[in-house]
Amino acid sequence: MESKLVKWGLKNEKEGCVSVTNRDLIKKISENLNKNDPRSIINLGNGDPTPFPSFKTTLVAEEALLNSLHSNSFNGYPHPYGVSIARRAVANHLSGDLPHKLSEDDVFITSGASQAIELLLTVLARPGANVLLPRPVFPLYKARAELVGLEVRQFDLLPHRDWEVDLDAVEAMADDGTIAMVVINPGYPTGNLFSLEHMQKIAETAQRKGIIVIADEVYRHIVFESQEFKPMGIFGSLTPILTVGSLSKRWLIPGWRVGWIAASDPNRLLSTSGIIESIQKYLCMTSSPATLIQGAIPEILERTPADFFDKIVVTLRESAEKCYRLTNEIPCITCPTKPQGCMFVMIKLNVAMLEGIVDELDFCCKLAKEESVILLPGDKNVLSLHILYERNISL
Amino acid sequence: MESKLVKWGLKNEKEGCVSVTNRDLIKKISENLNKNDPRSIINLGNGDPTPFPSFKTTLVAEEALLNSLHSNSFNGYPHPYGVSIARRAVANHLSGDLPHKLSEDDVFITSGASQAIELLLTVLARPGANVLLPRPVFPLYKARAELVGLEVRQFDLLPHRDWEVDLDAVEAMADDGTIAMVVINPGYPTGNLFSLEHMQKIAETAQRKGIIVIADEVYRHIVFESQEFKPMGIFGSLTPILTVGSLSKRWLIPGWRVGWIAASDPNRLLSTSGIIESIQKYLCMTSSPATLIQGAIPEILERTPADFFDKIVVTLRESAEKCYRLTNEIPCITCPTKPQGCMFVMIKLNVAMLEGIVDELDFCCKLAKEESVILLPGDKNVLSLHILYERNISL
Ligand SMILES: Cc1ncc(COP(=O)(O)O)c(C=O)c1O
Ligand SMILES: Cc1ncc(COP(=O)(O)O)c(C=O)c1O
Repeated sequence: MESKLVKWGLKNEKEGCVSVTNRDLIKKISENLNKNDPRSIINLGNGDPTPFPSFKTTLVAEEALLNSLHSNSFNGYPHPYGVSIARRAVANHLSGDLPHKLSEDDVFITSGASQAIELLLTVLARPGANVLLPRPVFPLYKARAELVGLEVRQFDLLPHRDWEVDLDAVEAMADDGTIAMVVINPGYPTGNLFSLEHMQKIAETAQRKGIIVIADEVYRHIVFESQEFKPMGIFGSLTPILTVGSLSKRWLIPGWRVGWIAASDPNRLLSTSGIIESIQKYLCMTSSPATLIQGAIPEILERTPADFFDKIVVTLRESAEKCYRLTNEIPCITCPTKPQGCMFVMIKLNVAMLEGIVDELDFCCKLAKEESVILLPGDKNVLSLHILYERNISL
Repeated sequence: MESKLVKWGLKNEKEGCVSVTNRDLIKKISENLNKNDPRSIINLGNGDPTPFPSFKTTLVAEEALLNSLHSNSFNGYPHPYGVSIARRAVANHLSGDLPHKLSEDDVFITSGASQAIELLLTVLARPGANVLLPRPVFPLYKARAELVGLEVRQFDLLPHRDWEVDLDAVEAMADDGTIAMVVINPGYPTGNLFSLEHMQKIAETAQRKGIIVIADEVYRHIVFESQEFKPMGIFGSLTPILTVGSLSKRWLIPGWRVGWIAASDPNRLLSTSGIIESIQKYLCMTSSPATLIQGAIPEILERTPADFFDKIVVTLRESAEKCYRLTNEIPCITCPTKPQGCMFVMIKLNVAMLEGIVDELDFCCKLAKEESVILLPGDKNVLSLHILYERNISL
């Protein structure tokens, strides 16, 4: 018996599973924490706002959930594409920023943006296909693409150009097997915001190359400067845009696990090509987010007052500025660009100045051990930290 | 642009996605409903108890959710393996029926039993591997195995022997590539209950063949006869048992999406072989069920009064008996065995007696069209219906 099982499992795992996610990284780094350190742990690694009193969700969300519970209408299995009123509410919510309105049929409710990512990469995979991801990227994209055997090609985000997409690289690497490119805006973990002009160039490049744009907008409207957030879906008439969104970040309820995919595709290329049908088919064979919570979505989207968001953005902006200023005072660390949005800041380590530190992962492990502070390693000596800490935590 | 996308999508889909799930079937059959029929639709196809007033969840579940919400402790990201108190509560809950107690580490919380199935088949897949499924089976097993390229071999359940597993067939079809066999008890959609003696024989066969048993016990303790439900985990010392369970059916809250995987494996073969590590790794790259609802699990499991379950079982038993009696009065239909548990009844169609009916799917489509009644087609002229209807619905 043993001999057979020992052949199985991780030891012989297909390559696909080897890629790490943020969850893996934080687990690994946390193993270095010194249990005897009397200071409490400062976890700046996972983007979970909920432990910090300044980042508490709105009463509207709690009331909406109570109403869903007491209605007794949301205990049954959800429709595989999502509860109808929730799909309609998301369509209306997003349509406000778009030239062509979305309908209920353009929206699919998922278990956080995470399941949207999982689904899209699974549905788009096929032998010989590839997907273009930014570098740096939210690691789940890479992990899920590798799991289903979808080849990953990465284009750089350019730090000296406010983290814009290196469109020449996209142009050069997209070929007949390329099905989609991913852009994250506001940028994770880079904290940048694309100009409308740059977004149009992205869409035009994608159109020329015949590829879909997957637009990760989980940080939509979390923007610090006067510049406004604009959704990629605006350019849906150039090339189909599949927007990934979620309640996790803006409403500070990542544990409610509500996300969505919205198709901005006035030319209906996603329907005629069968991709919408593939998405629907996959949704029939996967588990949906809780009906009970889906039942609360319309009220959450429609009734949350503007000042709830405003307060969060003001707090985040202050944190971002403080973080930018203070990290740049530390000799071995630079923060190349002042964050314009998102909940993360990216910093660069000067490893040459750090005795006995091999790379960013090593730095994070030792920081956890010695200072009980958790940061998130990227690659090439880059790491990131969220800016959700309270005002009274001094960096 | 079009030309490239048209190559994509369903039309060129890999074989893997072709298998249908119950969700697909019900969608397809529902398309035949006659919108002008004044009678309300009787959906006996999807096993959702919540539309029927006799099958309302316990107040304990609602209170538990309110407590979770008001605690303000369950809005953040869950641990990828599940919230600690929830894992512990499930371990305690299941341990009551087991010779060796489970610990928190043996339990993983999933988004319904559905995600447990999705996860296990993905983790166990590898080139050349196969899994043994019963016939009939809950279709999601087949669909997910095919999606990840895990070969499916099916052994019969024997109608003339109370739907016991054809163990000779298992013995003959298990080979070096076989990693696991699935058993569903109480049986879906067969409505049977295995004797302890038969369960031991299943475990012994699995042990001899060096394979894991995946025991789907989503209908645990939903048993009508005096015979008691016993979990497969009892035989974990013979071969590793991975039990799949959920709150969906027993607590009548399928829309809360809470399920689990529990490992009964006192010899720790699943750990030494790396399979537990693979499960953990997969959980780090998939979306978890809502933390908010996980926070309610301990109270739900610990505080639900016994008479809540008793009433459900009495109602189901009455329905099962009525269904058995009445279907056997219809000439073209036979119900081979009186259900002993579960929420479904399986019936056999005598297609020769039905003019203009090709097979069970055709029958279901025409029944939907003419009578606004939805049943669930199986294969070989077999179909099933749930027995969750109200007493005042006459079949
Ligand atoms: C860029 C990006 N996309 C997607 C996600 C996943 O979001 P959700 O919590 O809704 O699954 C995150 C979470 O941190 C993220 O940063
Ligand atoms: C045998 C069996 N297993 C698993 C499931 C899925 O259960 P859940 O609703 O918890 O995902 C069902 C649902 O009908 C079922 O009948």
